[in-house]
Amino acid sequence: MSETIGFIGLGNMGRPMAINLLKAGYNLQVYNRDESKTQDLVEAGARRGARPRDVVNHGSIVITMLANDEALEAVTLGNDGLLAHLGPGGIHLSMSTVSPAMARKMQQLHEQQDCAYVAAPVFGRPEAAAARQLWIAVAGKPEGKQRVRRILDTLGQGQFDFGEEAANANVVKISGNFMLAAAMEAMGEAFTLGEKNGIERSKMYELFTQTLFACPAYQSYGKRIAEKNFEPVGFTMQLALKDVNLVLDAAKEVQSPMPFASHLSNRLLSGLARGRADRDWSELSRGILDDAGIE
Amino acid sequence: MSETIGFIGLGNMGRPMAINLLKAGYNLQVYNRDESKTQDLVEAGARRGARPRDVVNHGSIVITMLANDEALEAVTLGNDGLLAHLGPGGIHLSMSTVSPAMARKMQQLHEQQDCAYVAAPVFGRPEAAAARQLWIAVAGKPEGKQRVRRILDTLGQGQFDFGEEAANANVVKISGNFMLAAAMEAMGEAFTLGEKNGIERSKMYELFTQTLFACPAYQSYGKRIAEKNFEPVGFTMQLALKDVNLVLDAAKEVQSPMPFASHLSNRLLSGLARGRADRDWSELSRGILDDAGIE
Amino acid sequence: MSETIGFIGLGNMGRPMAINLLKAGYNLQVYNRDESKTQDLVEAGARRGARPRDVVNHGSIVITMLANDEALEAVTLGNDGLLAHLGPGGIHLSMSTVSPAMARKMQQLHEQQDCAYVAAPVFGRPEAAAARQLWIAVAGKPEGKQRVRRILDTLGQGQFDFGEEAANANVVKISGNFMLAAAMEAMGEAFTLGEKNGIERSKMYELFTQTLFACPAYQSYGKRIAEKNFEPVGFTMQLALKDVNLVLDAAKEVQSPMPFASHLSNRLLSGLARGRADRDWSELSRGILDDAGIE
Amino acid sequence: MSETIGFIGLGNMGRPMAINLLKAGYNLQVYNRDESKTQDLVEAGARRGARPRDVVNHGSIVITMLANDEALEAVTLGNDGLLAHLGPGGIHLSMSTVSPAMARKMQQLHEQQDCAYVAAPVFGRPEAAAARQLWIAVAGKPEGKQRVRRILDTLGQGQFDFGEEAANANVVKISGNFMLAAAMEAMGEAFTLGEKNGIERSKMYELFTQTLFACPAYQSYGKRIAEKNFEPVGFTMQLALKDVNLVLDAAKEVQSPMPFASHLSNRLLSGLARGRADRDWSELSRGILDDAGIE
Repeated sequence: MSETIGFIGLGNMGRPMAINLLKAGYNLQVYNRDESKTQDLVEAGARRGARPRDVVNHGSIVITMLANDEALEAVTLGNDGLLAHLGPGGIHLSMSTVSPAMARKMQQLHEQQDCAYVAAPVFGRPEAAAARQLWIAVAGKPEGKQRVRRILDTLGQGQFDFGEEAANANVVKISGNFMLAAAMEAMGEAFTLGEKNGIERSKMYELFTQTLFACPAYQSYGKRIAEKNFEPVGFTMQLALKDVNLVLDAAKEVQSPMPFASHLSNRLLSGLARGRADRDWSELSRGILDDAGIE
Repeated sequence: MSETIGFIGLGNMGRPMAINLLKAGYNLQVYNRDESKTQDLVEAGARRGARPRDVVNHGSIVITMLANDEALEAVTLGNDGLLAHLGPGGIHLSMSTVSPAMARKMQQLHEQQDCAYVAAPVFGRPEAAAARQLWIAVAGKPEGKQRVRRILDTLGQGQFDFGEEAANANVVKISGNFMLAAAMEAMGEAFTLGEKNGIERSKMYELFTQTLFACPAYQSYGKRIAEKNFEPVGFTMQLALKDVNLVLDAAKEVQSPMPFASHLSNRLLSGLARGRADRDWSELSRGILDDAGIE
Repeated sequence: MSETIGFIGLGNMGRPMAINLLKAGYNLQVYNRDESKTQDLVEAGARRGARPRDVVNHGSIVITMLANDEALEAVTLGNDGLLAHLGPGGIHLSMSTVSPAMARKMQQLHEQQDCAYVAAPVFGRPEAAAARQLWIAVAGKPEGKQRVRRILDTLGQGQFDFGEEAANANVVKISGNFMLAAAMEAMGEAFTLGEKNGIERSKMYELFTQTLFACPAYQSYGKRIAEKNFEPVGFTMQLALKDVNLVLDAAKEVQSPMPFASHLSNRLLSGLARGRADRDWSELSRGILDDAGIE
Repeated sequence: MSETIGFIGLGNMGRPMAINLLKAGYNLQVYNRDESKTQDLVEAGARRGARPRDVVNHGSIVITMLANDEALEAVTLGNDGLLAHLGPGGIHLSMSTVSPAMARKMQQLHEQQDCAYVAAPVFGRPEAAAARQLWIAVAGKPEGKQRVRRILDTLGQGQFDFGEEAANANVVKISGNFMLAAAMEAMGEAFTLGEKNGIERSKMYELFTQTLFACPAYQSYGKRIAEKNFEPVGFTMQLALKDVNLVLDAAKEVQSPMPFASHLSNRLLSGLARGRADRDWSELSRGILDDAGIE
């Protein structure tokens, strides 16, 4: 249990994950662009690095949990980046939601250095991260996946393997976000139809989420949509739009038309145009109310 | 338990429901347009009527389980219809998936005769009907609902009350079918994006239906969509299109735009145009494969 | 020129058409539900009838110009209706925008009475009707069309023949309204994209309507959309929605998916939901501004 | 007339434009990546350069007519690029269809060098270029536009000025292509609805393009769509998809939802998925036929 791991990215998701690793007995070396966020981890026993390269040991494992493609490139490439210091046998366990294209590029760059790039994006909000209840999609070369298995067991409640192409784990991750947004739109349309007929939205919510749609996606987001109460903000409309657009970009690459995804892109874009960029993505359903002339 | 009930409509759904009522000790009087389908019920103890009116006792309960608006009108109105013979205090328990407009009209006609019209459309396939596992949306005047409660307990595993307007139960029912179709489209788009990236559709299915979407709607229809195996036919594309169009009609009445429903209407219509009217509605996902150039 | 014609329906369109027939020397017998609207025509020489049947001579021609299917049925069928009094050899020249299904039914009913039903819906606003500049789509049996040719020459600037099925002229007519609405949506989206980039909408309008789209549809509606000035009201959003829904109904009948028409149906429905039912249909483009967060 | 101009990009469009400039008396220095395409221009009096920089004179005008953003960057930037050699007072007249974002970047880079960047994308096919019948959208700083006015008069039949932001001319250009594609989709849906009703597509085409839509866009593309004859290829589906995606990218930047553009993106993407990348973009209407089950 005395293995030393690098951990880069201590945001809403990364922080609870890092804490769980410490608790499980791993030695952690952490880096965050905004250094102030590393304070409590250092107090809990982690070592802080000033640059990404400082938390990477030759041939060891480094985990990244970042906001987007640009952030991943920033900590990985260049002289201060992790890749130049990871060395043969090293593993970059990339858990961020990035584009499949970026994952593809990263995997190639790492393999040129005899490193492994394992994509392992997660499903779950910060609370799930803290409770070690994330679901994880994993993809990459077998040896790499083998070496990170125990770490992923520490972080989540289950792993699903999508083969050797790292990018595929990211395709699955953004597909999941697309499916969530589609479920929200469907509920929003149905509940609004009900409301206009004089039916309480919450009554419809109850029926559907106790029967056909008795699952976390519908139960958690449906409650917000039924009650038109989108607080607190978990995942913003702006980030949701980013992910739906990643889906559309990926769809373009492989020539796979996705009309629901296109609709959701417009729906979210309209939300941004109306000043809702920082609101919870479940508030995309307010667009349906706008269309229906409901305040 | 010696109460006598009329039961009209012995199709795939009505037949197992009628059998469950007999088993529970109710006396049944049954009518079906195609009389041959009443044979085994008669053998099991039901009395057969030659016309709808023949299975109705003054002031009692009559259940209808029919294919559409037209069939409901045909057995209800006119000289041979059930309504003219139901009498004050009688209850028409209408469990078919009909349009909200028809339910509204029916409720009015029944109340003019001092009868009650209780709408109680169901969620579930024939197997669920046989296993008394239907979910039921109920709406109508309180006295009526009170009197049919025990019957509905016999037929299903749970009831959800949507108030006094019978039509509202039908709004909920068709909204549910809309949400199911939307879930199928979303899965179809996501799995096809995956397939085009070289990901096994079934792997995506597994992740999603064990985690975020671990519920009957996704598990049952998702399996078909993942495997591209749409046999056996449970509910046809033609009937699904009918229901989605009922949703759009209801949406028009109350001025509630529903872009996902519109898309699904076109998707299903295209299925019909390609000769798939009698295929299972989950095969709407074949339209996505067509669009993506996959055989 | 002393031929006597019946004329039913003296609204915004019918009135100028009837006046043109009088000016051309036809004897007119007119009926309108609201009799006050017949006053000036009577002063100009027309004879007024109290019921539709009163303006029909055995074996002659009667023209109808009405708001919708219901109005056409009301003046045609029943004891006071025109059909019972038209007699063998009579011709019903139906110039209203009605559904293809209604035209089909009407043609059949007329032929059972040895009458001809000629569908001749028109393109053009009231000003065009007054100026005899309507464009007319004609369909029906050859003898009927032959006998109304001179009348149609009096009313419009050109006829286009769509064969023997009367309904087909109506398919063409509603298709035209669909194409107009689609052009408006396209301009609305393009001009709003321009506006958000700081481009004057009217500058874009100028380029497009002087070059690629130098035609009446784009020039007349485009001006309104560019200037966001939708006055005066020519054709209401409510009527436009009716016509787009006729298109979708016709599309359903022949299994022809029409995604643009579906979108326009939602766009117009949203307009109605926001209280714009009586506004000009070009104001459907305000929906795009709403989506884009522009007041 | 002895002014010397650089001209880069001698494809289907650039070649006839360059020839027209020679004919008008300009001295031309030409560059093309594939040098063989410069042969006949050299024979007609042009001087050939081996690198983009070789055709640029200090303080003079250089015209580019290229396929996309990447090609424009390739000839403009770097040591061999035109920008480093254009010098103060020089003008880059950029007539390609590129993204507004690229135009914005280019304008900035040029102004940092005291050069002018004038965007002047064109509407028209190669035949129109040869016949000097292009329509041109122009944007950039006034001095620059002033100096290229006579050149543009030589190349086209009309100019429309969109202000000082070069990118705006490109917004207008790609909006035009979007509007053309939307017109094609609308015609395709309408003609197919007609066909399924037994109406000849060409009859509908005749009515619409002689009346409401009597303009080049509908007349030229409508004929192909009516006749389902998409030969010869003018502008490919692949390039059309590129342009529609430029529209969607621009729409994203300014938060302007464009549902018709999204639909067209999917329609064209499906065309590519079915092997039609190199077919004429009017063949996007075959997607409607596919949806409608017509071979």
